[in-house]
Amino acid sequence: MNFKAILKNLGILLICEAISMLPALIVSFIYAGGDAPAFMHTIFFTICVGVILFKIKPDSPIIYARDGFAIVAVGWILISFFGALPFVLSGSIPSMIDGFFEASSGFTTTGASILTDVEILPKGILFWRSFTHWIGGMGIIVLTLAILPSVSEGSLHIMNAESPGPNPGKLVARVGQTAQILYLIYIAFTLTQIVLLCIAGMPFYDSMLTTFGSVGTGGFGIKNTSIGYYNNIFAEVIITFFMIVCGGNFALYYGLLKGNFKDFYKDEELRLYLGIIATAIILITINTYGHNFNSIGEALRHASFTVASIITTTGYATADFNQWPVFSKMILMLLMFIGGCAGSTAGSIKNIRILLLFKIMRRELMQIIHPRAFYTVKIGNKSVEEKTLLEVLAFFFMYMFIFLVAVLIISLDNFDVATTMSAVAATLGNIGPGISLVGPMGNYSELSYLSKITLSMCMIIGRLEIYPILLLMIPSFWRKVNI
Amino acid sequence: MNFKAILKNLGILLICEAISMLPALIVSFIYAGGDAPAFMHTIFFTICVGVILFKIKPDSPIIYARDGFAIVAVGWILISFFGALPFVLSGSIPSMIDGFFEASSGFTTTGASILTDVEILPKGILFWRSFTHWIGGMGIIVLTLAILPSVSEGSLHIMNAESPGPNPGKLVARVGQTAQILYLIYIAFTLTQIVLLCIAGMPFYDSMLTTFGSVGTGGFGIKNTSIGYYNNIFAEVIITFFMIVCGGNFALYYGLLKGNFKDFYKDEELRLYLGIIATAIILITINTYGHNFNSIGEALRHASFTVASIITTTGYATADFNQWPVFSKMILMLLMFIGGCAGSTAGSIKNIRILLLFKIMRRELMQIIHPRAFYTVKIGNKSVEEKTLLEVLAFFFMYMFIFLVAVLIISLDNFDVATTMSAVAATLGNIGPGISLVGPMGNYSELSYLSKITLSMCMIIGRLEIYPILLLMIPSFWRKVNI
Repeated sequence: MNFKAILKNLGILLICEAISMLPALIVSFIYAGGDAPAFMHTIFFTICVGVILFKIKPDSPIIYARDGFAIVAVGWILISFFGALPFVLSGSIPSMIDGFFEASSGFTTTGASILTDVEILPKGILFWRSFTHWIGGMGIIVLTLAILPSVSEGSLHIMNAESPGPNPGKLVARVGQTAQILYLIYIAFTLTQIVLLCIAGMPFYDSMLTTFGSVGTGGFGIKNTSIGYYNNIFAEVIITFFMIVCGGNFALYYGLLKGNFKDFYKDEELRLYLGIIATAIILITINTYGHNFNSIGEALRHASFTVASIITTTGYATADFNQWPVFSKMILMLLMFIGGCAGSTAGSIKNIRILLLFKIMRRELMQIIHPRAFYTVKIGNKSVEEKTLLEVLAFFFMYMFIFLVAVLIISLDNFDVATTMSAVAATLGNIGPGISLVGPMGNYSELSYLSKITLSMCMIIGRLEIYPILLLMIPSFWRKVNI
Repeated sequence: MNFKAILKNLGILLICEAISMLPALIVSFIYAGGDAPAFMHTIFFTICVGVILFKIKPDSPIIYARDGFAIVAVGWILISFFGALPFVLSGSIPSMIDGFFEASSGFTTTGASILTDVEILPKGILFWRSFTHWIGGMGIIVLTLAILPSVSEGSLHIMNAESPGPNPGKLVARVGQTAQILYLIYIAFTLTQIVLLCIAGMPFYDSMLTTFGSVGTGGFGIKNTSIGYYNNIFAEVIITFFMIVCGGNFALYYGLLKGNFKDFYKDEELRLYLGIIATAIILITINTYGHNFNSIGEALRHASFTVASIITTTGYATADFNQWPVFSKMILMLLMFIGGCAGSTAGSIKNIRILLLFKIMRRELMQIIHPRAFYTVKIGNKSVEEKTLLEVLAFFFMYMFIFLVAVLIISLDNFDVATTMSAVAATLGNIGPGISLVGPMGNYSELSYLSKITLSMCMIIGRLEIYPILLLMIPSFWRKVNI
C-alpha cells in the first residue's frame, strides 16, 4: 500500500470539501441565521487538516487499485465526518453521530434524515445539507479528478472504484476529460432545472435546493412534508423528469450530444429502466385509486412521482406512501433494490445488473432444456464474459448479505419488521425514506446510535458499490506485501 | 418430450400414492371417526386414474432430463391434488383449494396449515396429514425408484431433479440401490424416534405422528399448540435431536455406517450447519432471556428447539416465537433462507450453497487485492468448477426472485409486511410457520384463495429446488423438437 499517497489524496479531498463549503457560508451571511461561525470554524479546521495531509510526500507516485479503493472508502467516511461539523457546531444537530448520519446521507445522495423539523434550520445549514447531495451526486472523487491531474497515474483505478455499474465504459481516453464532460452535463441539468422550477412558481432558494436533491438523486426535503408542501403539479412534473433523467446513464447523454441517437434508443438497460418505471406506475395507480385517492388522475400523479423518486433512489415525496396498501409498498420496496442505471447518480443494485441477472436465469433454464447447446449472455450485440456474469451474481449475493447483517443489527432496536427492513433497504440503496416509522413523513431520529452508525455505513457501502468498504475490513488488504 | 412415458410414470406415482393411503385407512377403521369412506373413495379413484395412465405404452423407453423434470414437477402437483381428496371428502377441509394447500404442505414437508383447530379432526385424517410428511420426506420419487426398476433408464435424471443439493453424489452405482439404502436409514431413524418418544411418555399415536413430522422435517402439529402442548422436556430433546439429524446429509450417515468417520467430522457443510445452529441458539437465548423467559434454562430450552425446528425447515413449536423480540424473529427469518444440508429431508437454499456463496465472496475480494493471482474455490480439498459456482449464484438469485414475485402476489391481501414476507419465506423454504398472522400459534386460513394457490406453488417450487416448476412455465420446454 502507498500509505503516503493515500494520505496526500485524502488531504486534497478535504481541501476541496472546505472550498465546497464557501457557497453555504455565503448563504449563511445573506440570511444571517447565526450559522456563519459554524461554517467559518469548519472551513478553517478542514483546510488545516487538509493542508497537513497534502504536505506529505509519497515515496512513489504510483497508485494501485488497492490504494484507489482505500482513498475512496476512507475518503467518503472522512468527508462525511468533516461535513457533519457545520451541523454540530451550529447546534442544528447537537450529536456528532446524528451529524455524521446526516452528512453521510447527504454525500451518498441518500436523503435519510434524523431531523424531526427541517423548517426551523438556518438557511445556510439547509443549503449545505442539500448541497452535499449535489457534490456527492457526481462524486467528490470525480470532481477531484477533473481538477487535479496530479493523480492521473492511478486515477482510472479510483474511477473504477467510484463510478457505479459493472462496466462504466470510457467515454474518452483520458479520465480527467471524462470527468469534465460528465460534470458539464451535470451542471447543465442543474441550471435547467433551477430555471424551470422558478418558472413553475417555486421560490429561487427552494428551486435551487430542490434541484440539488433531484439532480444528485439525493432527496433531502427542505420542508417537513417534502415536495408535497408545494402542491405544485408543474414542479412535480419537472422534478419527476429530472429524477428519471439523472437515474439514467450519463454516458448515453454524452452520446446524444454527439448525435448518437441509435445507441440511446437501443440501450437495453434504459429500456428496462423505463419499462420498470411504467409498469410500477400503472400497478400503483390501480392499487391506490379508490383506496387513497378519489380520482384516477390524483392516483397517477402521486404514483408517478413516488415511483420515479424511489427507483432513482432520490426519496422526495408528494404523498405519504406509508398509508398505501401493502401491495404498493411492496412494489416500492422492490424498486429500492433495483435503483437507477449504471453511470448515473442513482444507487442500489442498478438496472444493468438486474438485466444480466435475468439473462443468466433464462440461460440456466435453456441450458437444462438443451444440455448440449452453448449459450452466451449478450447485452446489445456483445457477449458478456463469464467472469463478468459471475461478478454480477456475486455482487447480488453480497448486496443481500450486507442487507441481512444490517437488518440483524437494526432489529436490536426492536422496531417493527417493516421499519427494520425498509430502513436498511432505503439506506443501502441510497433512497432515503423507507416505510412505517422511517416512512416519507417519518425520520430516523428514534433509532439507537448503533443503528445510526450501521445505517451510515450502509449508505457509504451502497454508494461505493460494496467493495471498497468491505476491503477495508479484510486484514490482508492492509498488508504491505504488494502483488 | 416423451409424453407417453411421462404419463405412464405419473400413473405409477398415483398407484403408489393410493397404496400409501392404506395405513391411514386402517387407522380410520381402528378409531372409527367416520373418515374411512373418504379414504376408500379416494383410493379407488386414485387407483383407477393411476391404472389408466399406467396402461399407456410409450413409443420409446428413453427418458431424457427434460422428461424427468416434467415427471417430478407434474407429479408433485398431481399427488398433492389426489392427496387432498381425503380431507375434502371427509368434510375436514371443505374447500378443494384449502385441501390442496394442506396436501402440498404435507408432501413438500412444509407443515403450513390452513386448519384453525386440528384437534377436532378424525384420527385417520390426522394420520394421513402427518404421513404425507413422511412420504414426502424422502421423496415419493425415490420411493418409486426403489420399487420400480422399469424406469431405470431415465431414473438418474429424475434423481437429479428430485434430490436436494447442488451435487448429491452417487453413493452406489445404481440408483435403485441408492434409494433403498437412504430409505433404510430413514426407516431406522423413524422407528428409533417413535420408540424413544414412547419412552419419554408420549402416547403411541402421538409419537408416531410427531415422528413422521420430524423425520420428514415437515412439522404439522397434531395439537393446536404444536409440541408445546406436551410440555415434556425429554420429548423436546428427542425431537430436537432428530430434526437436526434429518436436516443433515444422509450420505454422511451412510458413510458412518461404513465406518467413514473422517468424512463425517471433516464435512464442511455439516460444520457450517452445526455452527449456525449453535450461534443462533446462543443469540436467541441471550435475546429472549429476561424478555420472554425468566430463567436462562427456559430461554435455552425454547431457543434450542425453535432454532432446530426452523433451520431444519420442520416448523414444530414449543413457544410462540412471534412474541419474541424482533432480533430473535429476524434470526429465525434468516434461518428460513438457509435450511438444512444437501441430501437431507430439509428444504430452503441449504448450507452447501451458503458455504459456496461465502467462499465466492471471499474470492472476489481477494481477487481485487491480488489482481494477478488466480483463486479457486474449494470444498474439502476439491476445487469446485466455475460452472457450478455460477449455478449456485444463479440459484440464489432465482430463489430471491421467486420470493419477491410471491411476496407481491401475497401483498394483494393487504396483511402486514411481516405476515406477507414470512408467509412466503416459510412456504418457499418448506418451513411452515412464519411470523405475525402466520406465526406458530396462527395459521394460513385467513389468506385469500389466490394467496393459498401461490403459496402451494411456492412449497412445491421450493421442495423441487426451483428448476422443475420454472421449466414447466417455459414454452420451449414443451416443444417436441428434441436435441
